[in-house]
Amino acid sequence: MNKSISTILKGYLPILDWLPNYKKTDLQGDLSAGLTVGIMLIPQGMAYAMLAGLEPIHGLYAVTVPLLIYAIFGTSRQLAVGPVAMVSLLTAAGIAGLNPSSPEQYLIYALSLAFLVGLIQFGMGLMRLGFVVNFLSHPVINGFTSAAAIIIGLSQIKHLFRINLPNSEHIQEMLVAIWQNIGDIHWITFGIGIIGIIIIKYGKKIHKSFPAPLIAVIVGIALVSGFDLTAQGVKIVGDVPSGLPSFSSPSFDMSVWRSLFPIALTISLVGFAESFAVAKTIQAKHKNYKLDANQELIGLGMANFAASFFKGYPVTGGFSRTAVNNEAGAKTTMASIISAVLIVLTLLFFTGLFYNLPSAILAAVVLVAVSGLVDYKEPLHLWKKDKSDFAMLIATFLITLTLGIETGIIAGMVLSLLVVIYRASKPHMAQLGRVPGTSIFRNLARFSDLESRKDLLMVRIDGPIYFANVEYIKNKLDKWIEEKEDKVKMIVFNMESVTNIDSTGAHELNEWILTWRKSGIDICLSSIKGPVRDVLNRWAILECVGSDHIFIDDNYALSYFDKDVDQSLIEKYSPYATQTNK
Amino acid sequence: MNKSISTILKGYLPILDWLPNYKKTDLQGDLSAGLTVGIMLIPQGMAYAMLAGLEPIHGLYAVTVPLLIYAIFGTSRQLAVGPVAMVSLLTAAGIAGLNPSSPEQYLIYALSLAFLVGLIQFGMGLMRLGFVVNFLSHPVINGFTSAAAIIIGLSQIKHLFRINLPNSEHIQEMLVAIWQNIGDIHWITFGIGIIGIIIIKYGKKIHKSFPAPLIAVIVGIALVSGFDLTAQGVKIVGDVPSGLPSFSSPSFDMSVWRSLFPIALTISLVGFAESFAVAKTIQAKHKNYKLDANQELIGLGMANFAASFFKGYPVTGGFSRTAVNNEAGAKTTMASIISAVLIVLTLLFFTGLFYNLPSAILAAVVLVAVSGLVDYKEPLHLWKKDKSDFAMLIATFLITLTLGIETGIIAGMVLSLLVVIYRASKPHMAQLGRVPGTSIFRNLARFSDLESRKDLLMVRIDGPIYFANVEYIKNKLDKWIEEKEDKVKMIVFNMESVTNIDSTGAHELNEWILTWRKSGIDICLSSIKGPVRDVLNRWAILECVGSDHIFIDDNYALSYFDKDVDQSLIEKYSPYATQTNK
Repeated sequence: MNKSISTILKGYLPILDWLPNYKKTDLQGDLSAGLTVGIMLIPQGMAYAMLAGLEPIHGLYAVTVPLLIYAIFGTSRQLAVGPVAMVSLLTAAGIAGLNPSSPEQYLIYALSLAFLVGLIQFGMGLMRLGFVVNFLSHPVINGFTSAAAIIIGLSQIKHLFRINLPNSEHIQEMLVAIWQNIGDIHWITFGIGIIGIIIIKYGKKIHKSFPAPLIAVIVGIALVSGFDLTAQGVKIVGDVPSGLPSFSSPSFDMSVWRSLFPIALTISLVGFAESFAVAKTIQAKHKNYKLDANQELIGLGMANFAASFFKGYPVTGGFSRTAVNNEAGAKTTMASIISAVLIVLTLLFFTGLFYNLPSAILAAVVLVAVSGLVDYKEPLHLWKKDKSDFAMLIATFLITLTLGIETGIIAGMVLSLLVVIYRASKPHMAQLGRVPGTSIFRNLARFSDLESRKDLLMVRIDGPIYFANVEYIKNKLDKWIEEKEDKVKMIVFNMESVTNIDSTGAHELNEWILTWRKSGIDICLSSIKGPVRDVLNRWAILECVGSDHIFIDDNYALSYFDKDVDQSLIEKYSPYATQTNK
Repeated sequence: MNKSISTILKGYLPILDWLPNYKKTDLQGDLSAGLTVGIMLIPQGMAYAMLAGLEPIHGLYAVTVPLLIYAIFGTSRQLAVGPVAMVSLLTAAGIAGLNPSSPEQYLIYALSLAFLVGLIQFGMGLMRLGFVVNFLSHPVINGFTSAAAIIIGLSQIKHLFRINLPNSEHIQEMLVAIWQNIGDIHWITFGIGIIGIIIIKYGKKIHKSFPAPLIAVIVGIALVSGFDLTAQGVKIVGDVPSGLPSFSSPSFDMSVWRSLFPIALTISLVGFAESFAVAKTIQAKHKNYKLDANQELIGLGMANFAASFFKGYPVTGGFSRTAVNNEAGAKTTMASIISAVLIVLTLLFFTGLFYNLPSAILAAVVLVAVSGLVDYKEPLHLWKKDKSDFAMLIATFLITLTLGIETGIIAGMVLSLLVVIYRASKPHMAQLGRVPGTSIFRNLARFSDLESRKDLLMVRIDGPIYFANVEYIKNKLDKWIEEKEDKVKMIVFNMESVTNIDSTGAHELNEWILTWRKSGIDICLSSIKGPVRDVLNRWAILECVGSDHIFIDDNYALSYFDKDVDQSLIEKYSPYATQTNK
């Protein structure tokens, strides 16, 4: 290891990698991107805070210090950190389960959640656990995102229609409640919302960096102020306190931590998965820096610590804002610093302007943001290509939709893992026969003209031999021996595609060998892979089989059985068949 | 399928398989075993019910109808179904979490738990999910059992010492509470307990079927009655109602079901795993009948339904009682029927005798039963042979001990799965070189005298290519290409040990091929397994690579690269390289 201190420092503080070489040309892009994203952040931050069940101001607090912190510790240069829809919904769902008694307590729970998320992400980063994000397979993320987008959309209906709906993440309850209250729609509120949706949705088409949400906010405020719509019953944001967030402290009550832990873990994983996915996509377009999953966890963890100490709530890298940031020309995280400065200025001088902002406009911001997340093309594609992945997508989608966000993501992960395990618990096994006149062996079930014999069972197991499949393998072997009318004198185990053997597998293999030998069936092993040779050696199974029963390929095994083997060749190749690592 | 109706019926009602051919000689063994186990069941049933937090009588109720039902539906002929220590502890832990307001409500929860366990096991049986028991690997079961035995043992200390301890399954709290109350030991109670332990532990050594627990019960009752020890403060069982269990109904309140579900799932899996493990061990000694995991689930599920409707609580096949049943000569489940009849007679005529039975004797029954479950040999063995399985055992042991039974078993299962996934997420990969003068290829990292070249990268991936490892594989390939100073002109993918490819893997493979071709590197695939050929074909990757780039082994791929290939041989073998299933 010849890493200099500077390299190590740059690993932990990626800002040192770009700040010393910062160029004027970079500033141009960063300034444009920072302002664009900052302007986007004002309505989005407020809207997502509302989605999370908090006062809108906390959405703005969440994009001050956390952004600066990520700018120092994060490895992505374009990632726009802040509140996002999914994490906001998870925050609301998690805190609702604790039945907070007052808005103050609700806030404490939100801060504690941010602290726990910080702790989990920071800890995972230190322990180099970034790889766990791989456990969320594409079909699972796709099904989960589509369902969550629908749930988030439905949660905004109450603001859009101004009707009373219970806080719920269960679609059945939400649909029933909407149906029951549909008569109470407040049409003026609904009209404002529709205007907001139209401005945001079609404003983007004018120009990529057209500040459509901000325009919608201005139009909404103007309508309410101009026509005195509050008197008509339109709900507004009201007083937004001015000034920077004061220092706040999360709860350190262990019983609170214990209750929040499951949702914090979910937010940590989902948040990181979303963030890292978008960071990878953008990084692939630049390639002038490297992403590091573990350092990303550390960066996001630090940002969440900052959120918990400055009246924010859990944050992560957002999909759409990061895309905008990149398109507007962001070259480094200086863009994020500029966004944060813009928010700080807003907090200091402009919060009074938001008094008349209608909630329906914030609902419109959320609705447009999540409407693009419902993906119907991918399921259609998978239906044609891979039924098992299709089933996984649909299952995750339906579970998320009916049993809630948290259950959905966990069920999706567990499903992915179960499918992997299920496949490995029923490994593909083949009886081999020789391609006539060659030393090549193929699966008897797939080719009709192979040579096979009753006194010899040649078997290939495609997968590891381990706790979850030993019984399946043994049953199949017994069945094949029976099918050969118990005339089998020798079993050749082709182990070329056995990738691993655990303690249970090694123990069982040993048992089989002893049992078969007792009943007059000899065993050979062929084509053993290096790592498997090591395991078999450690458990003394190579010894039990006998070193003269281990062959470099099936052909030598077969020759040995027929005793027409050329001993000099066996000696020549035996090191390649039996040598194990020191 | 030429299954007759009788075969199908026998599949669902295994009793039909032996009852029609029942012989007098069978009855001899069954009678002896049935009486032996029945006598064992009286103290054990009462002791385990107490462990579960119920009145002792429910332990006896649990071994009436459920035994008869299992005798009809179960496939094992020696399995002794009834209350067991682990399930009793889980029952106590699960119900405690619901804070029942009265003993009546506690009972309703226990009945509901039995009903849910019945539902889960019966449902899993119908859905042929018996294979899930394979997910509990040996190290996990071993670590879990040792820890649970210690927790169960500690939970009996309060009866043995007659001190006040909180109901807890957390070892820290239990140890602290024992330490604080150690001064209050009631020495007479403790003395009775020790006498009980000595009788049960050493009584077994006199003869295998010596009814040691029953003798301990009799001695206990005699001591209390003879010396009027209740006046001295010895706690006794007191009134045990006489008569058969009346019909009872579990709760059908969905909120109760929702709260009980996690523990019911745990009991279903742990109970089935314990039961099936012992059933397999015993079946292997007889071999005159077949065990069926799914039918076992149905049998145990039905037995739990019966427990919930006749005032019992969750039951399963017990380890020690089944061993005794077998050793005492049980030939069929007639033995269980005889045990049940003995309990019914006890309920009708002898419950009055148990009035003076000291709780300390029941604690002694539990303590001796679990003391044999703490296994220290297996961890030592694994430490030497398989560090990863050792770590899993210790982790499960420690988590169970410190965070509780339910967390322990779930953590153990998740750990097993994570290790499987982790291994598959970093598959072993090898660069291959040719054994000089042969057509055999081996790992360059393991053998020093192999032929390799800078313009050719021959790679073998040992494992599936799927969502969890595509990134790892790509990074390694890129590193190897870089190491060859970017002189690589051709990559040969040896796929002999690629066992599966999912949609993510297929998508990525396609990307890699296109990217490499663009940068002037050609790709060949060799030795593709049948199931993988099917997947590659479905995703049109075989087409993308080109059918003339797919070879039956590395040797042909190498010859193709050097253009000295014999076309007639390629044509002869190509069906074996490219043919996929219809």
